[in-house]
Amino acid sequence: MSDQPLVIFTPSGKRGRVAPGTSVLAAARQLGVDLDSVCGGRGICSKCQVTPSYGEFAKHGVTVRDGALSEWNSVEQRYDDKRGLPKGRRLGCQACIQGDVVLDVPPESQVHRQVIRKSADARPMVMDPAVRLYYVEVAEPDMHVPTGDFERLTQALKDQWEVTDLIAMPSLLAKLQGVLRKGAWKVTVAVHDDHTGARPQVIEVWPGLHEAGLFGLAIDLGSTTIAAHLTDLLTGEVRASSGLMNPQIRFGEDLMSRVSYVMMNPGGEAELTSVVRAALSDLARALADEAQIDSALIVEAAIVCNPVMHHLLLGIDPTELGQAPFALAVSESLSLPASDLEITTINPRARAYMLPCIAGHVGADAAAVSIATAPEMSDELMLVIDVGTNAEILLGDKTRVLACSSPTGPAFEGAQISSGQRAAPGAIERVEIDPATKEPRFRVIGVDLWSNDPGFAVAVAQTGVTGICGSGIIEAVAEMRMAGLLDARGLIGSAEQTGTIRCEPEGRTHSYLIHDGTAEGGPRISVTQGDIRAIQLAKSALYAGARLLMDERGVDRVDRVVLAGAFGAHISAKHAMVLGMIPDVALDKVTSAGNAAGTGARMALCSIAVRRQVEQGVRRISKIETAIAPKFQEHFVNANAIPHATDPFPELGRIVTLPDVSFNTNGGEDGGRRRRRRG
Amino acid sequence: MSDQPLVIFTPSGKRGRVAPGTSVLAAARQLGVDLDSVCGGRGICSKCQVTPSYGEFAKHGVTVRDGALSEWNSVEQRYDDKRGLPKGRRLGCQACIQGDVVLDVPPESQVHRQVIRKSADARPMVMDPAVRLYYVEVAEPDMHVPTGDFERLTQALKDQWEVTDLIAMPSLLAKLQGVLRKGAWKVTVAVHDDHTGARPQVIEVWPGLHEAGLFGLAIDLGSTTIAAHLTDLLTGEVRASSGLMNPQIRFGEDLMSRVSYVMMNPGGEAELTSVVRAALSDLARALADEAQIDSALIVEAAIVCNPVMHHLLLGIDPTELGQAPFALAVSESLSLPASDLEITTINPRARAYMLPCIAGHVGADAAAVSIATAPEMSDELMLVIDVGTNAEILLGDKTRVLACSSPTGPAFEGAQISSGQRAAPGAIERVEIDPATKEPRFRVIGVDLWSNDPGFAVAVAQTGVTGICGSGIIEAVAEMRMAGLLDARGLIGSAEQTGTIRCEPEGRTHSYLIHDGTAEGGPRISVTQGDIRAIQLAKSALYAGARLLMDERGVDRVDRVVLAGAFGAHISAKHAMVLGMIPDVALDKVTSAGNAAGTGARMALCSIAVRRQVEQGVRRISKIETAIAPKFQEHFVNANAIPHATDPFPELGRIVTLPDVSFNTNGGEDGGRRRRRRG
Repeated sequence: MSDQPLVIFTPSGKRGRVAPGTSVLAAARQLGVDLDSVCGGRGICSKCQVTPSYGEFAKHGVTVRDGALSEWNSVEQRYDDKRGLPKGRRLGCQACIQGDVVLDVPPESQVHRQVIRKSADARPMVMDPAVRLYYVEVAEPDMHVPTGDFERLTQALKDQWEVTDLIAMPSLLAKLQGVLRKGAWKVTVAVHDDHTGARPQVIEVWPGLHEAGLFGLAIDLGSTTIAAHLTDLLTGEVRASSGLMNPQIRFGEDLMSRVSYVMMNPGGEAELTSVVRAALSDLARALADEAQIDSALIVEAAIVCNPVMHHLLLGIDPTELGQAPFALAVSESLSLPASDLEITTINPRARAYMLPCIAGHVGADAAAVSIATAPEMSDELMLVIDVGTNAEILLGDKTRVLACSSPTGPAFEGAQISSGQRAAPGAIERVEIDPATKEPRFRVIGVDLWSNDPGFAVAVAQTGVTGICGSGIIEAVAEMRMAGLLDARGLIGSAEQTGTIRCEPEGRTHSYLIHDGTAEGGPRISVTQGDIRAIQLAKSALYAGARLLMDERGVDRVDRVVLAGAFGAHISAKHAMVLGMIPDVALDKVTSAGNAAGTGARMALCSIAVRRQVEQGVRRISKIETAIAPKFQEHFVNANAIPHATDPFPELGRIVTLPDVSFNTNGGEDGGRRRRRRG
Repeated sequence: MSDQPLVIFTPSGKRGRVAPGTSVLAAARQLGVDLDSVCGGRGICSKCQVTPSYGEFAKHGVTVRDGALSEWNSVEQRYDDKRGLPKGRRLGCQACIQGDVVLDVPPESQVHRQVIRKSADARPMVMDPAVRLYYVEVAEPDMHVPTGDFERLTQALKDQWEVTDLIAMPSLLAKLQGVLRKGAWKVTVAVHDDHTGARPQVIEVWPGLHEAGLFGLAIDLGSTTIAAHLTDLLTGEVRASSGLMNPQIRFGEDLMSRVSYVMMNPGGEAELTSVVRAALSDLARALADEAQIDSALIVEAAIVCNPVMHHLLLGIDPTELGQAPFALAVSESLSLPASDLEITTINPRARAYMLPCIAGHVGADAAAVSIATAPEMSDELMLVIDVGTNAEILLGDKTRVLACSSPTGPAFEGAQISSGQRAAPGAIERVEIDPATKEPRFRVIGVDLWSNDPGFAVAVAQTGVTGICGSGIIEAVAEMRMAGLLDARGLIGSAEQTGTIRCEPEGRTHSYLIHDGTAEGGPRISVTQGDIRAIQLAKSALYAGARLLMDERGVDRVDRVVLAGAFGAHISAKHAMVLGMIPDVALDKVTSAGNAAGTGARMALCSIAVRRQVEQGVRRISKIETAIAPKFQEHFVNANAIPHATDPFPELGRIVTLPDVSFNTNGGEDGGRRRRRRG
């Protein structure tokens, strides 16, 4: 068939011969090339742009001559006049193949376009959303063939797009008539099909070619914070991000307090469900406002959360999650109408996808972190820690992935800390203590200077120094230990013992003054013995969870540590290791995955293939239940100390030497024996 | 394999050999015999009862000896002690086959049991509902295999019943935990699977074996009346029936008035939708109360209605149905959550099935009538007329079925009649007029005596004579014609012309006094010239519709007339033919199908096979649009008269001879030229 032109598509490299006169779009479809089109080749959507190359292509063994494509036509000219086509581009539905040709499909013309994210991301993000747009021309009604508007619409989708088996909710049927007539029987429809066995559903319909975009929400529903990303479902781009406090906090700061609330107030889950659902609606409205889009363009939400939040969002009593055997009411992913979750501020027919839970204490948030960090694709043994009120911990590599959840409590988020606060402008986020003078210096969020830099007082005047956030308290405690202000058991020495008057008596214990802002009307910011205990409890839980997974895996070291969560992005690896939060590993092997749970939610939002991957992935993850593992208690107790007698960082040339101090106390504190479960 | 016992099941006649020791239930499943079981062979539901026969069965070529079944066992004894087993019965899951045996499966042990209805019914009613009960034993949660309760439930349904691919709404997931624990991991679930491609859904779950039954609603949503039948989904039995006025009447008595209301009040469809949905909820609650069942046991509704009501129930603007090309928004059947229709008084996860519309003016009510009367299965050419505010008319036989709708208006329902009323106690339903004396006698609903019988006055004292209902007015008009009080054009003669003072002047026309109740404080009930005109318009529309179908079919007579609708059951065939409502046919070939639309709804409710039949059937029905057929106008005008000059009933021995009278009027009435469209 050498009289048929050879077509080579880049970057895919797909090639084949087609009949002369075949449109580029048709050729792409014949050859299985991923070339987008919403209007189905009518020259109005411009999604099918390609760039032809001319000349000799030794690599491809082809020479492309002028005339390889049909001449620039009036449809292209009209489109160019009206909207502008980048130079060298052709519309794939208009340009016809007349000779051998090499055609480049630019990223924006690919349906399954790859979304550029940070280079650190483990898994490429490829667009493959559940909701897609189709432009169709619908047959007009005919008295002699009395089919309904909806049936003629579905026939058009079948004939023009091979989309079959569609259903629609009454509210869509109610608006369909008007839209069909307004669009003169040409409409764009948004069809949801997530390949879960449910029938594809017409979510929305617009007259003519719809060009105002299509959006989704990636929601990371945490115990303390709810974060959401308004994501463009055509490009994968985040158009707006926002967060708010989980309003359930008034029923209990940590998850177990909320479970207790429900246990003590039968039916109380309805209240918790109602407030969190309202918060999601508020967040969706705020994001649409911020991005200045019509909120009806939000057609899907992907939601990650821990099991308790998962159950409370669904309206399920979480009591069972508070006691062995920690049975989930439902563990697998859910695809359901967003209206079932009373998310009322988005498209009324929008869908919701809830990622699967891994186990009674290991939620969809951990599943989302696993999407974003992909330990199952790693050659190195990775420890992934998503630090939050509950820490989700994954350990694994290509051979096996283990997961557990550890009840760190909210200390790492600045709660239960005497001067603690959320990470916000004015919060101390970095601390250094001079080992010789025992004097601290610090930085606050929103100011680039250290507190002992010239001009700091002026720079900080706007926000003031308001408190200390999670990363700040970790650095403070680690620096105190490194400066000899804290012994291995975690006791703060007195002024006499430490040689600094910043160590002040506080009841029977001592505290260390970091900043006295009283002169400016600000607070006095100290680290108290209680703060140290809270951090010890939290870090012990975290470390014990990681150790438990390492035991299960039969290793005593890992190759890499990935810190996830908003907090993980700000934490200092060195200080975390001094504290004993995470196992020792080379400092350059500790990386941050940013908000991995949010990223995982966004990836699931944008790709049904990712959904299938995570659904299958969670089945392969081995779950370890910390609550009943005897070794967890043992690791927890052993991890309480801050014990590094020898240098934990030999590879960094002895930066740190922990002093072998030991302080006596007046016996007024409880030695860290209090334990908190699940929070 | 002659060492294997031969098993013969009656009445199916299915037979085969099974391994000795096979339970009867297992044998039935092996041989494809329809033997019910809810508990899956655990000896607790007793649905699998069979009656073994012993002795010689020449017909089957088998001799059944004692010991053909295993001995009566303790499970059967316990069941018999507790609940009682009919004599001779065995539990199919307990009795094992040890020798050749003949086993009768009584009707109540069949899943697809046939429901006994009136002998007149054309189509047998076989139970095959979308919602079925399954008793399952669910695995308890295991911390080491952290699947959710729902996943363990679905696994049990898969393992024990081969029911797969299940979904559930959040509200079901929310109650599942408690029910599983209350039932000690033994529960009965109701699964909806209507084979429309949607995933089967868990509708409800009960602890242990659920024995309180399962119900559905068959709803006939008419323009004037809404009727519903609470139907047992296990037996097909109607447990309660009720009706109420369609509350949309306040927006317009006939459908076109309601369409006009919406046209003149944009968004007005929301009001009409809201009131009719509320009425359905009220009706459901009333039926549950009447039958004294928990309304949560109502798990599905099947709904038939004309296209305008269909659209208004769905919340769709019906304006398009009021103008050519009469385009439906949706024509095919719909399977949707009943909550989408805001039916709030039944199970919150109940489903609704809306039968397909045939065309813009031929609705799901006609589809339901076709189910119940089955013209497509008839050897004779059948004319089926469902008389309501709109008449649905079907004409057909095995070769072809035609359908149209005709705008009769509400006159046949007693509306637009001077003394008209709904069929209710006190309403005149039968009328006779003596041709010699011109004196009437009548009967009222609720009293068995004629008005000239001794004791009538006493018998009627309780209700009084309150008005005249649809069947009464038809008889009155036909009798007036037969008594010579009315001429062929429909004019009432004066007292002088007719020789009776009951013909009284009324403006420029006359009326005929049937009953003067003023002495007892009751109304004066007359038939006015306006009443005659209203009936003429209605009957002309009806007749013209039937004629149109006959033209299309190329016939000028039919073999059989079936009158459907509540009204059809009460109408006198003789009087209808005198009036010219229906084409002439032998009187014994006119039958009533009762409330065929309601029956059709009930059959669709009880059988997904029936749903598929009607969905396919409506596609094969040829639709005739009366509104644009020029012949309809012609037939309509021609049908206005009451013309029988010769005896229409020769086979009955000249019962009727219509007098050849002709009255002059004062010219004060409009000759019936006013036309009403669609009502």
